[in-house]
Amino acid sequence: MPLPDYFEDFEIGTTQKFGRYHVTREEILEFAEKYDPQPFHLSDEAAAKTLFGSLCASGWHTCAMAMRMIVGNMTGGGKGTLGSPGINELRWTRPVFPGDTLRMESTIIDKKESRSRPEIGTVYMQNKVFNQNDELVMSNQPMVMFRKRNPG
Amino acid sequence: MPLPDYFEDFEIGTTQKFGRYHVTREEILEFAEKYDPQPFHLSDEAAAKTLFGSLCASGWHTCAMAMRMIVGNMTGGGKGTLGSPGINELRWTRPVFPGDTLRMESTIIDKKESRSRPEIGTVYMQNKVFNQNDELVMSNQPMVMFRKRNPG
Repeated sequence: MPLPDYFEDFEIGTTQKFGRYHVTREEILEFAEKYDPQPFHLSDEAAAKTLFGSLCASGWHTCAMAMRMIVGNMTGGGKGTLGSPGINELRWTRPVFPGDTLRMESTIIDKKESRSRPEIGTVYMQNKVFNQNDELVMSNQPMVMFRKRNPG
Repeated sequence: MPLPDYFEDFEIGTTQKFGRYHVTREEILEFAEKYDPQPFHLSDEAAAKTLFGSLCASGWHTCAMAMRMIVGNMTGGGKGTLGSPGINELRWTRPVFPGDTLRMESTIIDKKESRSRPEIGTVYMQNKVFNQNDELVMSNQPMVMFRKRNPG
């Protein structure tokens, strides 16, 4: 079941499982060179001197790959989505390595109608990203604004 | 003054100002096509129907651009940095538009030695990203692990 388009259709307590993102060494390097050129994201030698052990993806790259899986799971390409005011408790729990395949689980933990804008509501989610060994690599709690199908 | 390399050198209460990142329409589209292809990140027409008004950068792209400014501000290219276990209270407060120029302010809000690993400490920061009109576009509170110069 894909992500609903409208605020009314989100049901607190439901969990969706979706996504499949294969992480390549080339993409890890491309992202890191552009946005996060810390040594341990650029070479196995530098990463070996850290807690990571070998080359791993920038945490922001993991966020970006998760977003791509989320958009791929939107019903109508995100017709009702109005963007996000923010994220709580973002945690990078394990490194993401070249060759990993990521997937997601997203649980609706709360939803609130806007008081000032009757056409909008905010959905609170708990998102988790796992690797191919079912190890949690990232979790966070996004707030996402959605249009109502029937405003007011 | 750039970001220190070692845990001992971070001083609670100090604020650094740094970075200059010019945001192009091409880069916004390139990031969005790859990682966040929601309609309002891909066309002015779709964005006009949202709260954003016109094409704006993915929030994750803003995170990535901020990370690039942070790495550019590291003393020795991040010799002492060991990565981040996570981020608290990430907020996207205003859209980032093509043509914007971003800059950062980073305040050290706390630091704690690791109990289990005497060679490591965690630094807690409040990061803010501003546009060329000194409007806050993003804020967050990263936790970053650093090596100690003198372990134990």
